[in-house]
Amino acid sequence: MSINPNGYKLSDKTARLTAYDLLPTTVSATAETREFLQKVIDVLLDFVKATNDRNEKILEFHHPEEMKTILNLDIPDRAVTLQQLIEDCATTLKYQVKTGHPHFFNQLSCGLDIVSMAGEWLTATANTNMFTYEIAPVFILMENVVLSKMRQIIGWEGGDSILAPGGSISNLYAFLAARHKMFPNYKEHGAAGLPGQLVMFTSDQCHYSVKSCAAVCGLGTDHCVMVPSDEHGKMIISELERLILERKAKGHIPFFVNATAGTTVLGAFDNINQIADICQKYKCWLHIDAAWGGGLLLSRKYRHPRLSGIERADSVTWNPHKLMGALLQCSTIHFKEDGLLISCNQMSAEYLFMTDKQYDISYDTGDKVIQCGRHNDIFKLWLQWRSKGNEGFERQQDRLMQLAEYQVKRIREQSDRFHLILEPELVNVSFWYIPKRLRGVPHDKRKEAELAKICPIIKGRMMQKGSLMVGYQPDDRRPNFFRSIISSAAVTEQDVDFMLDEIHRLGDDL
Amino acid sequence: MSINPNGYKLSDKTARLTAYDLLPTTVSATAETREFLQKVIDVLLDFVKATNDRNEKILEFHHPEEMKTILNLDIPDRAVTLQQLIEDCATTLKYQVKTGHPHFFNQLSCGLDIVSMAGEWLTATANTNMFTYEIAPVFILMENVVLSKMRQIIGWEGGDSILAPGGSISNLYAFLAARHKMFPNYKEHGAAGLPGQLVMFTSDQCHYSVKSCAAVCGLGTDHCVMVPSDEHGKMIISELERLILERKAKGHIPFFVNATAGTTVLGAFDNINQIADICQKYKCWLHIDAAWGGGLLLSRKYRHPRLSGIERADSVTWNPHKLMGALLQCSTIHFKEDGLLISCNQMSAEYLFMTDKQYDISYDTGDKVIQCGRHNDIFKLWLQWRSKGNEGFERQQDRLMQLAEYQVKRIREQSDRFHLILEPELVNVSFWYIPKRLRGVPHDKRKEAELAKICPIIKGRMMQKGSLMVGYQPDDRRPNFFRSIISSAAVTEQDVDFMLDEIHRLGDDL
Repeated sequence: MSINPNGYKLSDKTARLTAYDLLPTTVSATAETREFLQKVIDVLLDFVKATNDRNEKILEFHHPEEMKTILNLDIPDRAVTLQQLIEDCATTLKYQVKTGHPHFFNQLSCGLDIVSMAGEWLTATANTNMFTYEIAPVFILMENVVLSKMRQIIGWEGGDSILAPGGSISNLYAFLAARHKMFPNYKEHGAAGLPGQLVMFTSDQCHYSVKSCAAVCGLGTDHCVMVPSDEHGKMIISELERLILERKAKGHIPFFVNATAGTTVLGAFDNINQIADICQKYKCWLHIDAAWGGGLLLSRKYRHPRLSGIERADSVTWNPHKLMGALLQCSTIHFKEDGLLISCNQMSAEYLFMTDKQYDISYDTGDKVIQCGRHNDIFKLWLQWRSKGNEGFERQQDRLMQLAEYQVKRIREQSDRFHLILEPELVNVSFWYIPKRLRGVPHDKRKEAELAKICPIIKGRMMQKGSLMVGYQPDDRRPNFFRSIISSAAVTEQDVDFMLDEIHRLGDDL
Repeated sequence: MSINPNGYKLSDKTARLTAYDLLPTTVSATAETREFLQKVIDVLLDFVKATNDRNEKILEFHHPEEMKTILNLDIPDRAVTLQQLIEDCATTLKYQVKTGHPHFFNQLSCGLDIVSMAGEWLTATANTNMFTYEIAPVFILMENVVLSKMRQIIGWEGGDSILAPGGSISNLYAFLAARHKMFPNYKEHGAAGLPGQLVMFTSDQCHYSVKSCAAVCGLGTDHCVMVPSDEHGKMIISELERLILERKAKGHIPFFVNATAGTTVLGAFDNINQIADICQKYKCWLHIDAAWGGGLLLSRKYRHPRLSGIERADSVTWNPHKLMGALLQCSTIHFKEDGLLISCNQMSAEYLFMTDKQYDISYDTGDKVIQCGRHNDIFKLWLQWRSKGNEGFERQQDRLMQLAEYQVKRIREQSDRFHLILEPELVNVSFWYIPKRLRGVPHDKRKEAELAKICPIIKGRMMQKGSLMVGYQPDDRRPNFFRSIISSAAVTEQDVDFMLDEIHRLGDDL
């Protein structure tokens, strides 16, 4: 039973009202406000139920132009009724992709953690900004507790951290802090004050936001050197050193190396210890982009060797909204050195960060960040962590890895139908589906080209049918291939089997 | 009746369960999941009720060290029970500041719009990312509708826009697009490829994020020229021209001017038309930071002359989470020229923005932004706008301005107790409270110093008592003074009277 937009009826009296008949405009409207909000919740609870029902479609696909004719997205001149708003909510969810559905293997962030979701509902209701203790006392203290804990897990005592709106901005914070630490006059004088061209290094498998830092911050993408990676997707360390020396020979200043812990496509982990040695040798800042793979820090079983050496980094990006399943968005950036974040980003706005306040202003975080207003991204994570305990969070990471291992095993067992591209280190599984006509044909470049062509067709079919979501993409070494992701706590072995079987059903004839 | 953390009891059976006994881990737990979420909602509905109750305290203040002993913020090894999670939610809200309370006049974003809040609940439940049509079809179309409408209101046909995590990042987008438009090679070559030192201009009353762009992006804050403002807080146009010429004489390249439409402290509007003339003359990009004042674009009565000429700008920041009362956060940045955002920020990640998708990929927005994952900030605004209609949103802006005018009138009528600092153009009202011992004393610098000293004391008292929240700060011309903000739809004339009376009660003896 899919959500029926006409199935949520307010009482006759309330249905005809508008938002002006609710709190706060109508002060006596506590009951009507409650009725309206409760009806919204009824819609949401049905969506949660549908999300967890394997018989439900993941999505009801329509092309954009068609979708526009189905939906009424107009902004009217006059207020619509409360009943219409309820229908709007239900219609929106009817056509929304259920990213928490157990058959959604599409992107890095999936799943719908019930407690984290409840946390985000509360966050919305508290509707506050995170710049000062004054207006967000509890949430500011929660940030302290959770971020300290995360730094301890990384392996640091002390240090400093902040929550940022996504891993890309977290990586940007790392870049800014590194530049500030090494060139403290940069903040005032800019690029003109530097003794030479700054250069940063990252593998060609890194997240594109690393390169984006170079464009945003004044280096230029020419000076973000893409270090080649090996066939496992890991940075080639000898190439890193060669490229650093090449730039030094030109008189450039290598200052920043990004190591990726869990690449976006293949889920590869760069060798942190080896990169740390190079950084030490050439006095570069070491940043670890563990936005994706960071969750494995919680797992004694899988942390090593993947993240060994992470404590040697100067900064670490780690997104709880990925492997840990916190609601979107929840991204953290951590620094080994305390005080850097504020000295780098402080603009000392007098109207917000006065020093004559009546409480200990060391809790005000607003001047550490390049945002002013900052969304409260901590409560959903704090509550979720309480709901699992350290133990449960570890078990969840282990479970995701086990499921990916199960998928690899099943792919191997069906090697006529599936071609595993590489042994994964994370929950990304990269593979081709082999349709009937290509089974038994020797694997070569020409076959790869054929296999690649059918990826978008199968993807189109699964979206039309609404039965499954799995992503595909090309990379530097090969054309289109499927990459499934298991980061949802909803997934079981049966769902993994369903994924493979469904791809087979959809693609056998291609 | 304040929220009682022990007042929300789950059934005996459910109370002892943990998150693992809910969906998705326990697939049969639909009823228990519903019971748990419903209980969270009961807490939230009580908070909404308390927020709208004038007899409730705005906050229960405790100093940080004391608050830590009251709250149990620990992350345990083992999962806490569902009953404990409910108590955690209730306790959190018990000590949270009610930013939607009618006596909260503290910061630019206040109020708790019921419909926008419901929208944010839905957003959390849908838990999706905004980079592609594939995983956020309805929300992507909503962005198109609402952002196009906002550009029309600005006065443009065509153009392009994006939602950003706060006004500071919106301003950063404007800076990046301007630099890219004027120096298209910058993206690859960086600052080294430029013919000279870039310089940007903004008034000394601007939001600090404008200056922060200079630090982040490679100019250095030395090259963000702060143009003096007049006693009304408006940029002095002759000074702008003089400073541009001064920099040109040094061989620098003026390229970007920020005009503020609604300054943070005084609520002043720079004269856009005069600044646009200067920008035209010296070929500078004109950005309007209307994060705060943008809401008045909806008001035929108050739009002119404040925002006259805004259609001449190249880019406009406008935060619906401020005057329009959308939930945090909701910030928009608009560009007159289409195509610029993508050519500036595109990194063409092949794994996300493939060109062989089965639908019209012009709807994928992810490659326009420097974030990768992007929170869904549109639904709450779309739903809210539907709930008010254009007409209602206009009326709401007018109403806020009328209340500020009422406050000014009341301050004037009590001129023995209050000193109005200037005639406001927006809902910021700047004033001093005059305690008994200083009434009748001629107003001079020495008296100002005395009045300034009592601001933090009154502020401390109102927080301890929990009866009122009003901000204070110094500025370039004067020491500490109060600045109240009316941006909440909950506020009435009686609440304005309460604010002034309460300050009097708290400060008469000082």
